[in-house]
Amino acid sequence: MKKRFLFTPGPSNVPPEVLAAMARPIVHHRSPDFDPIFAECSKRLQYVFQTENPVLTFASSGTGAMEAAVTGTLSPGDTMITIEGGKFGQRWGDIGRAYGMNVVTLTVEWGDAVDPARVAQALKDHPDAKAVFATLCETSTATLTDIEALGKVVAPTDAILAVDAISGLAADVFKTDAWGVDLAVAGSQKALMLPPGLAFLAVSAKARKLIETAKCPSYYFNLKKALKNLADNTTAYTPAVSLIVGLNVALRMIEAEELPNVWCRHSALANALRRGGNGLGLRQFSKAPSNAVVAWHLPEGVSYKDLSLKLRDEHGLTIAGGQDHLKGKIFRAAAMGWADLKDVISFLGALERVLTDLGYAVPQRGGGVAGALEELESYELGFAN
Amino acid sequence: MKKRFLFTPGPSNVPPEVLAAMARPIVHHRSPDFDPIFAECSKRLQYVFQTENPVLTFASSGTGAMEAAVTGTLSPGDTMITIEGGKFGQRWGDIGRAYGMNVVTLTVEWGDAVDPARVAQALKDHPDAKAVFATLCETSTATLTDIEALGKVVAPTDAILAVDAISGLAADVFKTDAWGVDLAVAGSQKALMLPPGLAFLAVSAKARKLIETAKCPSYYFNLKKALKNLADNTTAYTPAVSLIVGLNVALRMIEAEELPNVWCRHSALANALRRGGNGLGLRQFSKAPSNAVVAWHLPEGVSYKDLSLKLRDEHGLTIAGGQDHLKGKIFRAAAMGWADLKDVISFLGALERVLTDLGYAVPQRGGGVAGALEELESYELGFAN
Repeated sequence: MKKRFLFTPGPSNVPPEVLAAMARPIVHHRSPDFDPIFAECSKRLQYVFQTENPVLTFASSGTGAMEAAVTGTLSPGDTMITIEGGKFGQRWGDIGRAYGMNVVTLTVEWGDAVDPARVAQALKDHPDAKAVFATLCETSTATLTDIEALGKVVAPTDAILAVDAISGLAADVFKTDAWGVDLAVAGSQKALMLPPGLAFLAVSAKARKLIETAKCPSYYFNLKKALKNLADNTTAYTPAVSLIVGLNVALRMIEAEELPNVWCRHSALANALRRGGNGLGLRQFSKAPSNAVVAWHLPEGVSYKDLSLKLRDEHGLTIAGGQDHLKGKIFRAAAMGWADLKDVISFLGALERVLTDLGYAVPQRGGGVAGALEELESYELGFAN
Repeated sequence: MKKRFLFTPGPSNVPPEVLAAMARPIVHHRSPDFDPIFAECSKRLQYVFQTENPVLTFASSGTGAMEAAVTGTLSPGDTMITIEGGKFGQRWGDIGRAYGMNVVTLTVEWGDAVDPARVAQALKDHPDAKAVFATLCETSTATLTDIEALGKVVAPTDAILAVDAISGLAADVFKTDAWGVDLAVAGSQKALMLPPGLAFLAVSAKARKLIETAKCPSYYFNLKKALKNLADNTTAYTPAVSLIVGLNVALRMIEAEELPNVWCRHSALANALRRGGNGLGLRQFSKAPSNAVVAWHLPEGVSYKDLSLKLRDEHGLTIAGGQDHLKGKIFRAAAMGWADLKDVISFLGALERVLTDLGYAVPQRGGGVAGALEELESYELGFAN
């Protein structure tokens, strides 16, 4: 028997209800079988994004919607400000450079969040900047950016604020409209509890003005065409029908739990993971931790390869390692989407066992689980409904 | 009870085995759970494409891979030759124009296939042309292009031949390498029997040379990056894991049936549909019919809306209408992918009943089914294995 569970920051585990919905016979995407499903999804996405603005759905990974955000609003030569404190912050700059933008980069130490004052200064230094590109949860370092503060800095200027919320959405508190976010990107395979293959993009009125004048070439990810089609409750190109059918079920689950409770659950589980890590004597990596994923330094003498393979082969648990220069330095675990207290407890127990097997001296037997239970004492738990 | 069946040229019906595979718990895309599946898919795709060259997999609709084919091999200002005899032939030109190419268009009457001599002449008139873009099955008109003949015309020149085989692959005979096709595009939701959400692109050595020098901006669909990642048995960005798990099952089914038999089945069913249509007194639209989809003129006095709604609401059968200027003029039906004799017979019976209800005088009661049965007499049928 192989009972597996993903503790990776995407793909995350998909609830059986969603898997079952996606296994239903396929329907045609331009038909009365699909139209109400897509309309419901678009509406429910607005709730999860906390926006009144349109939310586009693309058949692609999240990176596709990031490209749409850049090429749909800017023209070659335009100045854009990016914040690079990890692999995904860098991606905004990579996309901009691929399309000939003038990319102004604010470099941040990996594991740190950007100081909003630096963004304010950059906007003063580059009054021609058309957009600021930020990352809600920088997945590679498990670090949260204070998007609300960035919104206050960017909103009064002519620039728009674009946020990669791919791993953060529904895990970290995120309020697109209230925080003045003009473009918000998300992906299906994170806290939205779906397989990968869908990307989402919320578009504000301020962003739509830029879209009117943008001159980057684009076709599949063309925002004008996508917005026009969304207004007609459809997509420019064939949508990933089965994933959208699953999306509707997943979003209904989030709606039933209510978004503030979903945020609270992610916070509780991430805090429990972190406190559990403390109980195991692990050192957290991020200085501004997100609730989507937790990163720890690898204890001395423990290799990522050994740790991850033992967790996988002996316990059916998949974790993630460090990326780029953090490879072999950190490991990451996420109780994201379809996860609860049981999952965190079992993970910490298995982690303790594997670390011990690998010669690491755990400060106290059961210390990981003890930490998590202590942390979770203050949270209401319940299967009452 | 609502027992539905799609008779649309994509999405097509997904076999229960494939639906079940996609409903399995999700695995991580960079893990030993996924690596062999992706390697198998890439290998099996080569078989279906009939190529020894790499076949890329993108998380997108087929249009995404068309954009990759254009932007990955050309530079702005380059001359490209397109053949526009329908909506999808036009798409090649639309993509080229979006990226600033010099698009030379060979216009063909909708429903006609291009004369290869015209392509040869165009290559003589435009010796700087970098590529010819063609369409195996022009889905909007149910028309087949003679790609083998085009290959003979293009291969001796410096230009590459790119073919949109999205709806044609595995339905119409198609031999990427033997016919000298340099770029072949396909999508998951046609004869490959999967939901939409995956696009494929086979890339020849001649095309790879162009890729080295191409200067169109690109990111998500960047071919250099995609080819480099495929060589490492991975994808540049998060793949649509569950669809790829399903793909492997679908491709295994095609392998077990053997591709020549799959082609033969599509030919048999399409011929049965056409002969059945004759039996109903219907007039075929295409002058060079494909086996992926059949198009008929709408009989006088029968509106597409009435026909399609009655088929849908009374029989659970979904068909497709005409596109652009053919809207309201033709209707299309496809026995594509997971379809057999039973499906064609039941469709023709339901079609006869609906046409009769709508006041159309069928030449002979049961004439549609009779035609199909007559056509299929010469084909071996069997569930022996």
